[in-house]
Amino acid sequence: MIIRPNCHWFIRLFAWQGSVLPGILFRLGLNLAMSLIAIFCLGWYESLGIKLTLAPFSLLGVSIAIFLGFRNSVCYARYTEARQMWGNLLIACRNIQRQALAICPHEAQQVTSLLLAFCYSMKHQLRGTDARHDLTRFLGENAEKILHRRAPTNFIELQLSQWLAEQRRNGQISDILYTNMDQNLNQLTQVLGGCERLASMPVPFAYGLLLHRTVYLFCTLLPFALVPDLHYMTPVVSVFISYTFLSLDTLAEELETPFGYAKNHLPMDAMCNNIEINLREMNQERDLPEAMHPDVRFRLT
Amino acid sequence: MIIRPNCHWFIRLFAWQGSVLPGILFRLGLNLAMSLIAIFCLGWYESLGIKLTLAPFSLLGVSIAIFLGFRNSVCYARYTEARQMWGNLLIACRNIQRQALAICPHEAQQVTSLLLAFCYSMKHQLRGTDARHDLTRFLGENAEKILHRRAPTNFIELQLSQWLAEQRRNGQISDILYTNMDQNLNQLTQVLGGCERLASMPVPFAYGLLLHRTVYLFCTLLPFALVPDLHYMTPVVSVFISYTFLSLDTLAEELETPFGYAKNHLPMDAMCNNIEINLREMNQERDLPEAMHPDVRFRLT
Amino acid sequence: MIIRPNCHWFIRLFAWQGSVLPGILFRLGLNLAMSLIAIFCLGWYESLGIKLTLAPFSLLGVSIAIFLGFRNSVCYARYTEARQMWGNLLIACRNIQRQALAICPHEAQQVTSLLLAFCYSMKHQLRGTDARHDLTRFLGENAEKILHRRAPTNFIELQLSQWLAEQRRNGQISDILYTNMDQNLNQLTQVLGGCERLASMPVPFAYGLLLHRTVYLFCTLLPFALVPDLHYMTPVVSVFISYTFLSLDTLAEELETPFGYAKNHLPMDAMCNNIEINLREMNQERDLPEAMHPDVRFRLT
Amino acid sequence: MIIRPNCHWFIRLFAWQGSVLPGILFRLGLNLAMSLIAIFCLGWYESLGIKLTLAPFSLLGVSIAIFLGFRNSVCYARYTEARQMWGNLLIACRNIQRQALAICPHEAQQVTSLLLAFCYSMKHQLRGTDARHDLTRFLGENAEKILHRRAPTNFIELQLSQWLAEQRRNGQISDILYTNMDQNLNQLTQVLGGCERLASMPVPFAYGLLLHRTVYLFCTLLPFALVPDLHYMTPVVSVFISYTFLSLDTLAEELETPFGYAKNHLPMDAMCNNIEINLREMNQERDLPEAMHPDVRFRLT
Amino acid sequence: MIIRPNCHWFIRLFAWQGSVLPGILFRLGLNLAMSLIAIFCLGWYESLGIKLTLAPFSLLGVSIAIFLGFRNSVCYARYTEARQMWGNLLIACRNIQRQALAICPHEAQQVTSLLLAFCYSMKHQLRGTDARHDLTRFLGENAEKILHRRAPTNFIELQLSQWLAEQRRNGQISDILYTNMDQNLNQLTQVLGGCERLASMPVPFAYGLLLHRTVYLFCTLLPFALVPDLHYMTPVVSVFISYTFLSLDTLAEELETPFGYAKNHLPMDAMCNNIEINLREMNQERDLPEAMHPDVRFRLT
Repeated sequence: MIIRPNCHWFIRLFAWQGSVLPGILFRLGLNLAMSLIAIFCLGWYESLGIKLTLAPFSLLGVSIAIFLGFRNSVCYARYTEARQMWGNLLIACRNIQRQALAICPHEAQQVTSLLLAFCYSMKHQLRGTDARHDLTRFLGENAEKILHRRAPTNFIELQLSQWLAEQRRNGQISDILYTNMDQNLNQLTQVLGGCERLASMPVPFAYGLLLHRTVYLFCTLLPFALVPDLHYMTPVVSVFISYTFLSLDTLAEELETPFGYAKNHLPMDAMCNNIEINLREMNQERDLPEAMHPDVRFRLT
Repeated sequence: MIIRPNCHWFIRLFAWQGSVLPGILFRLGLNLAMSLIAIFCLGWYESLGIKLTLAPFSLLGVSIAIFLGFRNSVCYARYTEARQMWGNLLIACRNIQRQALAICPHEAQQVTSLLLAFCYSMKHQLRGTDARHDLTRFLGENAEKILHRRAPTNFIELQLSQWLAEQRRNGQISDILYTNMDQNLNQLTQVLGGCERLASMPVPFAYGLLLHRTVYLFCTLLPFALVPDLHYMTPVVSVFISYTFLSLDTLAEELETPFGYAKNHLPMDAMCNNIEINLREMNQERDLPEAMHPDVRFRLT
Repeated sequence: MIIRPNCHWFIRLFAWQGSVLPGILFRLGLNLAMSLIAIFCLGWYESLGIKLTLAPFSLLGVSIAIFLGFRNSVCYARYTEARQMWGNLLIACRNIQRQALAICPHEAQQVTSLLLAFCYSMKHQLRGTDARHDLTRFLGENAEKILHRRAPTNFIELQLSQWLAEQRRNGQISDILYTNMDQNLNQLTQVLGGCERLASMPVPFAYGLLLHRTVYLFCTLLPFALVPDLHYMTPVVSVFISYTFLSLDTLAEELETPFGYAKNHLPMDAMCNNIEINLREMNQERDLPEAMHPDVRFRLT
Repeated sequence: MIIRPNCHWFIRLFAWQGSVLPGILFRLGLNLAMSLIAIFCLGWYESLGIKLTLAPFSLLGVSIAIFLGFRNSVCYARYTEARQMWGNLLIACRNIQRQALAICPHEAQQVTSLLLAFCYSMKHQLRGTDARHDLTRFLGENAEKILHRRAPTNFIELQLSQWLAEQRRNGQISDILYTNMDQNLNQLTQVLGGCERLASMPVPFAYGLLLHRTVYLFCTLLPFALVPDLHYMTPVVSVFISYTFLSLDTLAEELETPFGYAKNHLPMDAMCNNIEINLREMNQERDLPEAMHPDVRFRLT
Repeated sequence: MIIRPNCHWFIRLFAWQGSVLPGILFRLGLNLAMSLIAIFCLGWYESLGIKLTLAPFSLLGVSIAIFLGFRNSVCYARYTEARQMWGNLLIACRNIQRQALAICPHEAQQVTSLLLAFCYSMKHQLRGTDARHDLTRFLGENAEKILHRRAPTNFIELQLSQWLAEQRRNGQISDILYTNMDQNLNQLTQVLGGCERLASMPVPFAYGLLLHRTVYLFCTLLPFALVPDLHYMTPVVSVFISYTFLSLDTLAEELETPFGYAKNHLPMDAMCNNIEINLREMNQERDLPEAMHPDVRFRLT
């Protein structure tokens, strides 16, 4: 679904879209200003007996790099887990649809509607957007009954479960087949519960705070430590080091909350669209929706 | 459930709530005092031939950072596992409730009560608080029989199991459906056993002790190593480095025991409340409890 | 399937095939040129008061190494997961074939065809190549119906499912046996969904971009930092350090997208061939295809 | 079960129990002696043209720290896995007991005996101690038949399985219920097999050897590298750095083999005791054994 | 099965067996020679204006240590996974044997033979050795039919499956019991598939190559960087650092391919022997084979 611009390594050096550069430009500017202050004031504050050397910053920088590395793997793990949940959603939907087609093919259409309502509702719930349009598309008037619920997505799954129970009560399917399909409904519950967990449990706030502060303080003091050695080259090196640390900090923060609209968030619109195409095609429907493609800025929503 | 203050990066630099700063302020003060002592005594003890240089501290600092990184990932893993257990609790409760509604809808109310008693009892058991009020709310007089048990939460699950066995014996549900629901009871046992394990198995005591000591000794000796180079800037750099190391050590310690009341512990009140809302809504109940929101200090209990 | 040249450690030092060296040779040349420029211009730009020292590059280099290490483990994890998916595919195919042989041996041939069509179709789908030849080989005329599908591989699984449902409807297999085999079909869905997830979710683009840039900028500035100390030895050390960083960056990039034709990508042709041999042999067929072996350059496709 | 002394950070600095300090005191003494030798011989061996500087030791120290960090996470992972196995044992026992109580309550007492015999036997098997007393307590005369077996714990599980098979043959339980309980027996096999695996597969011997040697050699040479810079402060810094490295090495070694009697090993006595209390309470027994508590030295066996 | 020599820390320093030292002795000798060359030629090549300092090697050394750490954890993970597979094999064999004994005890002997043939055949397949002797021991004349197969181990499992299917067809076991045992056969497939995957998928060749080269080049250049500072101490420090890096590189390589005969490979002979003892004892056989013990060099095959 996401197409990565597989461009040449040289062109990639100057890519603007997709990088976190725009978001930290102002802070890099501040760092540049600080470097210039350091150069011009060096004589004055050294005469006061104040000096900074690079050695303690080396120790501190490596320590911060280690902790940043830890925070990055933690945030990336959340991003990966979120993506896996959505992958599992596709898998569960395909399985349920497949079983419905195998066991009670005449009802498969209805299962599709409920499954798609589940997916779109989960998307809207995670993003905090209004699900009315999408739910009406799949459930018609029943959508209203769901929209004002506290846990709407869970309620849609309950309806799938009720439908299944009805088939069993009518003698359409045996207890064994019921159990078999019910276990795939458990998968849906797991996907939903897992996504809700990720959305409601951030990385402990203090981690972000702590690294944020140390990274900023480090970048602010750095020029003063570099200037005795590097003099006029201070801005180049200082901005370069700050860029490395600030952009990793910023990127970690974006990945920490993967259910948003930012560049590096999950393209849930495209994933819902993909599930819709899959389920409908299994149903032998003809007028499938268009697959979504990244826009000119390589972005999918 | 937890709302993270998604504030601007600049404001966040000076956030007070949610950081671990208050807890280590005294120790940072000690470090500041040590820096001042180092500055004033430098001449005296150098004349005695005693000196410290930064190089060995650089080696030591990076080593401690690596070990701190290890301890942080270990403690964070415990925190994440605890959160996952509670996520799985929500999932298991939804599944059991869903199956009860599908198979024996008239008994669903009773299942809800037992499930909620299970959740609240587990919360109290993990925190070591009194479960009487909550259990009475769900089980009425039966609560008394449970409160004096050694393993009360496990006993509530046993009652769920007895209820299920009764349905089978009455011929309400077949062996197959019994087995299907019983497998979700296994999930409850797993959540309970997993949380008990986390609560009773700390990270080996020696780890915390070891890092604690090295971090403190390192921070205490650091000013004496910095002062020959930095002189009057020693306090700034020394307190900064100490802040980084001490706060990570403190944070790891908080996350190590996730079932408490501290800022970075799991908000189990809110999670029980969330499960209650979910299960009751599935039951079509009207007067659902209010969802819990973080207080002005962004804290949930 | 892949035969690793288990050569002597000495010979391995000069291996050319299988290394990433050819891909970064041009960039190492650039670095060499930069080193020579640094040597010849040293006097001139030092007279302008411009100088670079190694200390800040040491800090930066170690930080980049930490982040490169993170990116490598992330990309390697993707590669391993992809390989595991294909391993699971072999496992699922063997299980389904085994069950078919045990329960309805007369139909086993047909199951084999569908399973092999599934594997080859997945290979082509992941590589974006044309599946016509392979599908026709296994499905005959039915292949046409599948080729124009949006999700062809999923559709083949649906046919397996239909076949299974037919056996159940004919009373060939009981509901219990149906459920047992159906659970192995779920495994196929998981493999397919997992591979599609890996193919469609790259590591967040900004990570690659960020490391790419810092690595390149670092390697470009490095000679200027080395030259005051090393003088004529600058090219040797600079190219050596650049080689280490650039090749790890390049290797991570190759592993990130494991479903291609590059040297370090998954040999999916050989894996499909292996599954084919396995399933056909289980069927007691005689004329099994040849096992694929690496070519003279130790490459498998 | 394990109560962690949640003492003040200041008191903890001087804790003696629970630390690995006693075990490495002699080796720290050696290091101290080496430091003194370095101080007194400095003049003499420098006159011979022999000198050591800190720079290569810095490089080496950080490398060793990285490898020690790796070994620590590996050993800690073994410890955690062992603890998880025992947690799963509690979970499996509760599930089997719960199902026995639900399906054939009159036989539950017998199941309890076999389960407890399984737990205690596993404990003795892992520690290599004599299981006679505990097995006789639960199985009476049957214990003798088990004690001389090569795989006694596995044999107890076989008896559980035989009991279950008997119930099925008598028509007490249907095939479906039999299967349901049998799957929990599989859990027991997994716990037993997993613990046996951990006990019989150490971390490759060469790892421990390698780190052991490098750590010791590093600590021995360190004073000679520190003394030119630090002179009289050499012993303080050298012993401090040695303490950090040696104690981590020692701790990793303890965690590597978690089934012993050392301070940081698993308290398997207490865990068996806990399972006994749980199962007996589920059986409505009155005279439950006392829960075990840590002794004055915070130790549980 | 593997007995680790739990010797005193002092004795362990000089252990020869089990270490990787013999394998790298020649290369350490080369490094020693290089150090001596560096010492004797120092004056000459410094007069040519060629010099090397330690600072860039410090940066490079730490980077290589980080990448070596990554490679070690990757290779160790493979080793652990391989060991887990074999642990799971024991578990699956015990479960299948237990179920056979519970359900059709008269056929248990035959199941044992097939299971043991499976284990031994897998061992030979992974090592590429001749399975004739072991297969004949368990399967008699049937062994011939298996030996010339392309996937002999898989074929043995197929025979287990056929045996099970026959029991079902004869009405010996119901569909439910069939399914229950069949799911344990799936475990066998997973173990076999997993081991085949590990054996056929090495870590990407370029990783080993890359680290190999950088480690060797680093060790070769290191003496020249050390000699200006350390002079006559160069050989000691250079060989020490080289020992650390080379032995980790060598150890990682050994663990990468765990199915061989090297010291740190899996002792598959002993593990097969252990499974044989277990299964036969469950069958109440008397003349169990001897348990295998490490030889005087602490080696198990």
